[in-house]
Amino acid sequence: MRKGFPEPMETLIKQFSKMPGIGARSAQRMTFHILKSAKEDVEELTRSIKNVKENIRFCKTCNNLSDRETCSICSDNTRDKIKICVVESPASVYAMEKSGIYNGLYHVLLGELSPIDGVGPDELKIKELVQRVKGSKIEEVIIATDFTTEGETTALYLFEILKPLKVKISRLARGVPIGGTLEYADVGTLQMAFEERKSA
Amino acid sequence: MRKGFPEPMETLIKQFSKMPGIGARSAQRMTFHILKSAKEDVEELTRSIKNVKENIRFCKTCNNLSDRETCSICSDNTRDKIKICVVESPASVYAMEKSGIYNGLYHVLLGELSPIDGVGPDELKIKELVQRVKGSKIEEVIIATDFTTEGETTALYLFEILKPLKVKISRLARGVPIGGTLEYADVGTLQMAFEERKSA
Repeated sequence: MRKGFPEPMETLIKQFSKMPGIGARSAQRMTFHILKSAKEDVEELTRSIKNVKENIRFCKTCNNLSDRETCSICSDNTRDKIKICVVESPASVYAMEKSGIYNGLYHVLLGELSPIDGVGPDELKIKELVQRVKGSKIEEVIIATDFTTEGETTALYLFEILKPLKVKISRLARGVPIGGTLEYADVGTLQMAFEERKSA
Repeated sequence: MRKGFPEPMETLIKQFSKMPGIGARSAQRMTFHILKSAKEDVEELTRSIKNVKENIRFCKTCNNLSDRETCSICSDNTRDKIKICVVESPASVYAMEKSGIYNGLYHVLLGELSPIDGVGPDELKIKELVQRVKGSKIEEVIIATDFTTEGETTALYLFEILKPLKVKISRLARGVPIGGTLEYADVGTLQMAFEERKSA
C-alpha cells in the first residue's frame, strides 16, 4: 500500500490548503516549515493565531478592524475629523493608509450591495454611516467603494441616501491608471477617462 | 500618522510571511482567512500545528517522518524487505510513494554530502544504513539521491562504502524525462542519455 505523510501532517496539510491562494504544494512546504522550526517559534505562531481570532473586533465607530473598542484611526487626534472616506472593507482602509494620501476618518461598510447575492442596504453599515454624518461636524463624504458593478451600485445608493444631509459628497476619480497605456486600457476605462476629461 | 492593521494582525502577517513561498500579500490573505473562519476551525488549526510539532519524529529504523517509533512503511508486512531505496529526505519518500512504483523499504539520509556547507558523512545517516544492510537480508540497495552535484557526490560515496558489503547496488537511471523533447533537454541530460543508451 502506498503511504503518505503521517496522519498529523496530512491533517495540517489539508487545513493549510483551505487557505486562500495556498495549493497542496505550498501547504506541504508550510507543514515542513512547522516541523523544522524551533518549538518556541511554533508556539508563538499558534499564540498569534489565537490572539487574532480572540482579540480582533470591529471598531464601534467606523467598523474598521481593531484590537480595542475604538480603532487607532478613530482615536487619533491628529486626523482630520471633517472628512469621512466610505470604503467596502478593512482591506481598502489598509490600501488607502499605505498610500499615505488621506488623513481623514473612514467608514467601513463591511460589504457591497449585491441584490443577486441577497445583500441589501440593511446588511451593510449604511444606517450607521447616516447616523454618524448627522450627529457630527462631517463636511465631506468621499465615496471610495470599488469600481465594480457592486461597488458602483453601492456608490449610487449612498449618493441618494446622503443627498438630504447637506454634506459635500464626492467619488474617487475614474480613468486610466498612472503608468497605464491607452493601448492596453479596457474600453470601459477609456470611455470613462474620455467622458470625465478635464480641460487644461 | 499612517495606520496599518491592528498589532495582533501585523504580528501574525509577519509570522506567516516567514513561511517558504508566502509573500506579504498571501500572509495578509491568510490572516483575513483566520479572522473570517469559525472559531472551531481556528482551534482545530492551532491544535493540528501543535500536534505536528509535538508528535512527528523520525522513524528509528529508516529516519522517515512518523508519528510512532517505527514508521508505517517499516512496520508494513506487505512491503518487500529485501530492497532498500536510499533517499535524501522524507519528501523524496513521499514522491516515490505517490508514484506507486516501489514496494520495498527506504533509508532516509536526512541530507546530502556538501563539503562546502560542512556536511560530511557523519552528519548523514550513513553509518546507520551500513549497519542496517549488514544485519539483514537486504539484497539490493537502490541509490536514489537527487541528480544534483551534492546528490551525485553522496551517491558516489555510498557506492564506495557499500561495495564491501556484497549487496547489489543500483542507481536510478538518468536520461531525457518522459514527455521531454530533445530540443529542450539540457546538454548534461542529453550527454547522459547518449552515454547510457540501451541497445534495442
